[in-house]
Amino acid sequence: MSDFSCKPVSLDEINVGMTASYSQTITDHDIKNFAGLSGDYNPVHVSDEYIQSSRFRKRVVHGLMPTSFFSGIFGMRLPGPGCLYVSQAIEFKRPIYIDDTVTAKVEVIEVDLVTRHVKFRTTCSVKNKVVIDGLADIFIPKDV
Amino acid sequence: MSDFSCKPVSLDEINVGMTASYSQTITDHDIKNFAGLSGDYNPVHVSDEYIQSSRFRKRVVHGLMPTSFFSGIFGMRLPGPGCLYVSQAIEFKRPIYIDDTVTAKVEVIEVDLVTRHVKFRTTCSVKNKVVIDGLADIFIPKDV
Amino acid sequence: MSDFSCKPVSLDEINVGMTASYSQTITDHDIKNFAGLSGDYNPVHVSDEYIQSSRFRKRVVHGLMPTSFFSGIFGMRLPGPGCLYVSQAIEFKRPIYIDDTVTAKVEVIEVDLVTRHVKFRTTCSVKNKVVIDGLADIFIPKDV
Amino acid sequence: MSDFSCKPVSLDEINVGMTASYSQTITDHDIKNFAGLSGDYNPVHVSDEYIQSSRFRKRVVHGLMPTSFFSGIFGMRLPGPGCLYVSQAIEFKRPIYIDDTVTAKVEVIEVDLVTRHVKFRTTCSVKNKVVIDGLADIFIPKDV
Repeated sequence: MSDFSCKPVSLDEINVGMTASYSQTITDHDIKNFAGLSGDYNPVHVSDEYIQSSRFRKRVVHGLMPTSFFSGIFGMRLPGPGCLYVSQAIEFKRPIYIDDTVTAKVEVIEVDLVTRHVKFRTTCSVKNKVVIDGLADIFIPKDV
Repeated sequence: MSDFSCKPVSLDEINVGMTASYSQTITDHDIKNFAGLSGDYNPVHVSDEYIQSSRFRKRVVHGLMPTSFFSGIFGMRLPGPGCLYVSQAIEFKRPIYIDDTVTAKVEVIEVDLVTRHVKFRTTCSVKNKVVIDGLADIFIPKDV
Repeated sequence: MSDFSCKPVSLDEINVGMTASYSQTITDHDIKNFAGLSGDYNPVHVSDEYIQSSRFRKRVVHGLMPTSFFSGIFGMRLPGPGCLYVSQAIEFKRPIYIDDTVTAKVEVIEVDLVTRHVKFRTTCSVKNKVVIDGLADIFIPKDV
Repeated sequence: MSDFSCKPVSLDEINVGMTASYSQTITDHDIKNFAGLSGDYNPVHVSDEYIQSSRFRKRVVHGLMPTSFFSGIFGMRLPGPGCLYVSQAIEFKRPIYIDDTVTAKVEVIEVDLVTRHVKFRTTCSVKNKVVIDGLADIFIPKDV
């Protein structure tokens, strides 16, 4: 049952325009876990008191937290297990607030059958507004 | 590194060439936590059996895991609390293996006093070899 | 519940009808931790937006999350440290919602002194309604 | 790009014999996380000292820990997002030891197009030996 097992999508099955996405509500748990992982305890992320005296309405999610969903989509679904992350460029365009539901989406924009690199546009959206925009380069080894 | 302690470094104190760094040994705990955060359970990260049949010698660390240390350095030390992440570009140049000690380093390469943006070169190294290379753009709000 | 404290209850002290229970409010933290452990990021568990367009009123707790409390009760109190889990059958009878307080309860229904197996009915309830029902078989080694 | 997005596999695409699987090396991190989630700190799981005086060669993994991978496969891949867990029966046939690589596999054994229930055989294996065996019943709501 190849299609639903966690086997990689092979290079020749990948076409420009293919997409995959993942949605999650980002809660305090995710912020605190990312703070613990990164050491980033910037009060804009972890202090309600600091936020009340700032120009933000709620605590702001670390931009790299939902960026990690790109890694999840690449590693698990498109192209899937075995692929290698070559580069990721990210622009944090709008703040993401605690309890926002973020949809991470990757879309194939270029496939190089010779070098085995696939380029993706990578976005995160909240209520259909792009909050994170970027580009990724993924390499698919031959032996996968 | 007393100068970049946990009070913000104000924009006019920041000069080209300033650096801040952070070192950590990346263990299974960090990999599994990042897998849980990102949903990325690619077997190159989580399965010893898969690795034994691959060209890697040990399980590979998710590239975005130590990238998160840049967020930690920016948010905590240089420029410190209150700054905002505008963009981050990353190239994953060499695999990082479980139990490697990674040193993340940021270095100021450009300061714009008018727009209040600071550009950094951001690197992660293992045994003095650059494993992750990149550029970051940080904005320092006036009220910080 | 002093009788089922953290020293093992020996086989000959166990009688049909004995019970032990444990209560916990299931929060986003528990759901996200279970998602991270299991890889189950089904949007019924992690996305508020998805839930709003579904027939559920709030995010649903992974059924195996509070099922894990049976493991806690068996391993810690009845029979306690040293026992081995032989089997567990579970029916998920009603959805459990985020912020529900779940009471897990195990009740001895059969004791076999020869084979050293103890059978339990295992239930989870929310506001006195059974949400999870099941049966477990526990083996108590002689050397415990 | 429907095939690789996290959209559910519809009931009429599911056939007897379909499988999906997931592999992970179970480390101390997973054991401790499961202990924290379940409250099961049975020394067979968490104490090296206890294990040295027991008949086990290494700390034993909580049986319900890799059982959670079934939830991950059902919720994410087969049938995927939106499906509901109706029941799960599990037999723990052999101990799983810390640092074992476990492969969880689900296989469709029955599809009922009228009631919309799908039955699966669910197994976990270590080095091709079945360590956990079981059956699951999954319901696929119409609106998914």
